[in-house]
Amino acid sequence: MRYAVLGTGIVGRTLASKLLELGHEVTMGSRSAGNEAATAWASDGGEPAHHGTFRDAAAAGDVVINATAGEGALAALESAGEENLEGKVLIDTSNAIDHSSGFPPLLTVANTDSVAEQIQRRFPRARVVKALNTVNAEVMVNPGMIDGGHNLFIAGDDAAAKAEVVAFLAGLGWAADDVIDLGDITNARALEMYLTLWIRLMRRLGNARFNIRVVRAS
Amino acid sequence: MRYAVLGTGIVGRTLASKLLELGHEVTMGSRSAGNEAATAWASDGGEPAHHGTFRDAAAAGDVVINATAGEGALAALESAGEENLEGKVLIDTSNAIDHSSGFPPLLTVANTDSVAEQIQRRFPRARVVKALNTVNAEVMVNPGMIDGGHNLFIAGDDAAAKAEVVAFLAGLGWAADDVIDLGDITNARALEMYLTLWIRLMRRLGNARFNIRVVRAS
Repeated sequence: MRYAVLGTGIVGRTLASKLLELGHEVTMGSRSAGNEAATAWASDGGEPAHHGTFRDAAAAGDVVINATAGEGALAALESAGEENLEGKVLIDTSNAIDHSSGFPPLLTVANTDSVAEQIQRRFPRARVVKALNTVNAEVMVNPGMIDGGHNLFIAGDDAAAKAEVVAFLAGLGWAADDVIDLGDITNARALEMYLTLWIRLMRRLGNARFNIRVVRAS
Repeated sequence: MRYAVLGTGIVGRTLASKLLELGHEVTMGSRSAGNEAATAWASDGGEPAHHGTFRDAAAAGDVVINATAGEGALAALESAGEENLEGKVLIDTSNAIDHSSGFPPLLTVANTDSVAEQIQRRFPRARVVKALNTVNAEVMVNPGMIDGGHNLFIAGDDAAAKAEVVAFLAGLGWAADDVIDLGDITNARALEMYLTLWIRLMRRLGNARFNIRVVRAS
């Protein structure tokens, strides 16, 4: 498979490297073609690793992963170009963090809307699936680092796209049974709002190597 | 101990009955003294069970539990009277659910504020602790119905009040180790925003007999 990873931060680099490991071809996209982190990543990654603009990456990918920061997501996808997203699965891993008011941060959008919904509205022909935004990059690609089952959540309007994402997540190590489909893309707002709890747990626990497990009465 | 339980809904009645079982004296408060649910509850509960207005209840309690709906919380506490809350631990179990827009509901307050913060600002001499709003009434008073450890979260400005709440929760069956203190009262917003995920999990799982467990890498 050919993946576009938009964003050169820790999430983008970690996912992109894991996808190389899994034998995929990956183009990392950033605002400018000469981005230092993307260039370094592609040079380390060898032949199946490419880098370019958001547009270059989206054009090259069968699947597009938005690993930009939530507040920059729409602009990045705008640069990527609507025609390069059309009909593709677009995995949105972003969180809408407003860093302007200190720690813990506020969200730039909450309650009545979410980044994923904004993306789906702006790019109606993209098949947006919210996923992975509730764990840190290390846990994303190595869920086994935490013992026992723990959960990921997905949301999106397109059932076939969600099935593809479940298969993609299985490649990262997530058992299909541990992935909870919350329903259509409007449910992404619950996942983005969970960030407010996640970030406080991170502060309390002292690191980001954790997740939650949904446990039920028998 | 003497508890005031404000609210006659399923949360109020369940907590109030559990507190009777534990040997406490409980006054259930509602808008009007003759509230049917409160009258029936007190009649079933026998001698240590009382009912009255929000004011009667708050005056009678050493500890006040807000089990009203989030959107009615401030008005209920206003009726209870500032002087009846002063210096007391006030356990806020409420969720700020806006039912006007269908299911899943929006929150009436989110991101930049929370019901618990509103209460603490309006009643600065009350010792507000957010607790129990992340599980349903059955789980609140019987955490053992779910196997293995699972977590409750608290938030509040007053460390001594939080310690009292941890002891109160132990009475309900929550091991102190399973109670995670997120910090000051502003952290209540994360717990109230979690409701958006909880309600979608409830829909997905088909019932409310669940909770989350925070799991960590070893």
